[in-house]
Amino acid sequence: MVSAHNSGGDIASAARKPRYELLTLGDELLLGLTANGHLTFIGAQLGRRGALLQRNVTITDEAEAIAAQFRESWARADVVITTGGLGPTCDDRTREVVAEVLGQKLIFDPVLARAIAERFARFGRKMTANNLKQAYVFERGEVLENANGTAPGLWAEQDGKVLIMLPGPPNEMQPMFTEKVLPRLAARHLVLDREAYVQIRTAGVGESALETKLQPIFDRAGPGLSVAFCAHEGRVDCRVSSPTAALSHAKLESVAGECAHLLGDDFVCYGHDSLARVCAELLRVQEKKLAVAETATGGLLANAFSESCGACKFFAGGVVCCSNDIKTQLLDVPECLLLQHGAVSDEAAVAMATGAAETLGADYALAVTGFAGAAATGNGGNVVGTIFVALFSPMGVWSKKLSYPGPRRTVKTRAVNAALDWLRRELLRAQRGGALPTQRIGVMQ
Amino acid sequence: MVSAHNSGGDIASAARKPRYELLTLGDELLLGLTANGHLTFIGAQLGRRGALLQRNVTITDEAEAIAAQFRESWARADVVITTGGLGPTCDDRTREVVAEVLGQKLIFDPVLARAIAERFARFGRKMTANNLKQAYVFERGEVLENANGTAPGLWAEQDGKVLIMLPGPPNEMQPMFTEKVLPRLAARHLVLDREAYVQIRTAGVGESALETKLQPIFDRAGPGLSVAFCAHEGRVDCRVSSPTAALSHAKLESVAGECAHLLGDDFVCYGHDSLARVCAELLRVQEKKLAVAETATGGLLANAFSESCGACKFFAGGVVCCSNDIKTQLLDVPECLLLQHGAVSDEAAVAMATGAAETLGADYALAVTGFAGAAATGNGGNVVGTIFVALFSPMGVWSKKLSYPGPRRTVKTRAVNAALDWLRRELLRAQRGGALPTQRIGVMQ
Repeated sequence: MVSAHNSGGDIASAARKPRYELLTLGDELLLGLTANGHLTFIGAQLGRRGALLQRNVTITDEAEAIAAQFRESWARADVVITTGGLGPTCDDRTREVVAEVLGQKLIFDPVLARAIAERFARFGRKMTANNLKQAYVFERGEVLENANGTAPGLWAEQDGKVLIMLPGPPNEMQPMFTEKVLPRLAARHLVLDREAYVQIRTAGVGESALETKLQPIFDRAGPGLSVAFCAHEGRVDCRVSSPTAALSHAKLESVAGECAHLLGDDFVCYGHDSLARVCAELLRVQEKKLAVAETATGGLLANAFSESCGACKFFAGGVVCCSNDIKTQLLDVPECLLLQHGAVSDEAAVAMATGAAETLGADYALAVTGFAGAAATGNGGNVVGTIFVALFSPMGVWSKKLSYPGPRRTVKTRAVNAALDWLRRELLRAQRGGALPTQRIGVMQ
Repeated sequence: MVSAHNSGGDIASAARKPRYELLTLGDELLLGLTANGHLTFIGAQLGRRGALLQRNVTITDEAEAIAAQFRESWARADVVITTGGLGPTCDDRTREVVAEVLGQKLIFDPVLARAIAERFARFGRKMTANNLKQAYVFERGEVLENANGTAPGLWAEQDGKVLIMLPGPPNEMQPMFTEKVLPRLAARHLVLDREAYVQIRTAGVGESALETKLQPIFDRAGPGLSVAFCAHEGRVDCRVSSPTAALSHAKLESVAGECAHLLGDDFVCYGHDSLARVCAELLRVQEKKLAVAETATGGLLANAFSESCGACKFFAGGVVCCSNDIKTQLLDVPECLLLQHGAVSDEAAVAMATGAAETLGADYALAVTGFAGAAATGNGGNVVGTIFVALFSPMGVWSKKLSYPGPRRTVKTRAVNAALDWLRRELLRAQRGGALPTQRIGVMQ
């Protein structure tokens, strides 16, 4: 049985935090054929519950390498998580290798075998004999049911440590981790049973400006408060926590509330919602519809909304235009305007947003035009990374010029975030009753 | 000095391949705030040159953890690559820690210091004193110039091994790796000076069917041939190589050529081009224009083309429609058709493709409609994962029904790939002179 490392049952106040190591198995990761999303997902999930992943090792599928690495990690860590290598084929031998290191027997689980066979039958696929390999489980351990695939997860406790073996496909591993693994870890006080920090998400203000602004609040909260900032392409998250548990969660929430209040519209949300989701919620509440028109972002602005469920209710649609013809034809952008000011200009962005709102019958519209990548040839003195964003709203239409360094992908993401943030501010203003703020940032620069 | 592990100067024929380990440093990776793209990039680059990355370890920024892990990796590997921790702030101490383990002195490089100061001046930013930390380099080593940032890369050879320290930002690390690191590794015979394999990219045929079809060619090629398959959401890559160098590169090219010939239109390209890029090239050569209309893929189909440089030449644009109104208004889809057959139907897809081609003035058009994610409510017996793709071409318009399991993101990617592959086949047929193939796959199922 695993012992909690503290008497209070709260790892945040533990004298020594449990050590987590993650072994991601698979040549496809080392060959760069698949991104190591397991590290990103599991690291974030543990972090949210107050546990820091100490180490992630990715090694080849060779049995010897797996055995040596597992032995080392098992000796050092309190919790070892493995992903991959639980499939039916002969190169999936993680289960056997780990069982041998632990001195565990693998036993055949007939209930599991039946479930695997039933899953094959349900999807009309033929089950081959090697699939039954997946029905072998640790003699002293638990099975973590796989709702989305055939390979079950395995859980074992031994030597005062926990072993968690998870399948490789993300759509199997991720729900298994949040639904089966986290509650078990929380019950053993190896992670918190709630979020370890209160996060406020901000936009439109830089990391150091944010810190300077919020510092008086942190100073007043006194010692025991820990603050971390994290910038993501136009958005900055600020996490307040109390690793020594000197401050209660209610106190942390009150500190975050003070920050949110002080930040005004620079505050996006508590927690982890995306800018698109926050905009979607505001549109839904206000029963307004949005349309988009984009060139430089190529479809990514529209796609930000299509990730939301039930997007039809608030998202009318979008037009991705490459040529001036399309802007003229679909969005009623006057050809003479494009010739006079260029397709990458304040004027073009304003005309695109207006056209999108009118053609698509929307209350709000965002337009993005610009040069996101290296091959675009400059126009009117604009260089790569120059972006014009326009916002059409019931109150009027404005544009602003932005400039981002970096590769095409970064420029596109930042342009999408800037557009979404502007919309969010305008929706907030409308919600308050339409009073124009005393300072309007970036309009018609 | 590093010794080559073989006399022939070709690692493919080496008795013992050099061992590569990659240390990715940074709490932001372990906290899941940033994806570990360094593993994906460096793993793929080494793999293409015949070297297999043996291990990737991600650890926290703590000096002790870095020192212990570096010591271990240095003892075991022939080449150790580190990323991150070369910045100017006090938590960037990788340089110092590694220098101590190696018994190297860090010395101030005035030329580098001047270059850093000039870079700050060029971008109008203020340089603080800690930035000069980046001008300290190994006494016995080389500097890898950073064309895109201030932190230089470091290269050192010692104990018959190579150490390569690279900056963390991907837009600095990646060009440094391909332009400075790979040529140095090749000169020391630690990677090949050309690609280690010939890759053929295929689409529309499953991994096992592909293997069965190509096996006779591989059998004829005789021993010494190594074949690897890799499936990516609708695309399968097949790599032929000769790890023992029993077969020459010319022979490998000839084997790949036989495969390509046998596969006909299932062959996409040699190498690493995307389906969108292959389509773009065919459209460019044939001087045709493409338009897209999408619901389920939300803008990702359009975005596939906007990644290409000079997309305007062949990509007219796209419409992302959420509501039936937009389909009717922008794409001239008859309202009665949508009411009779539903928005997710063969008929709707055909009408959307036709409308997109006509409205946007394109020769070809792709349309995608369907239920990509869990919140969509079924319609006409269609379940989540049901996708209809339609293709409009000068020869006519067709649609097909597809069905994909998995989460929203997977369904969207596979739908985009299916649409692109269909367009590619139609463009190939047109290039051959328009003869219809005897078997047309998947049309109007």
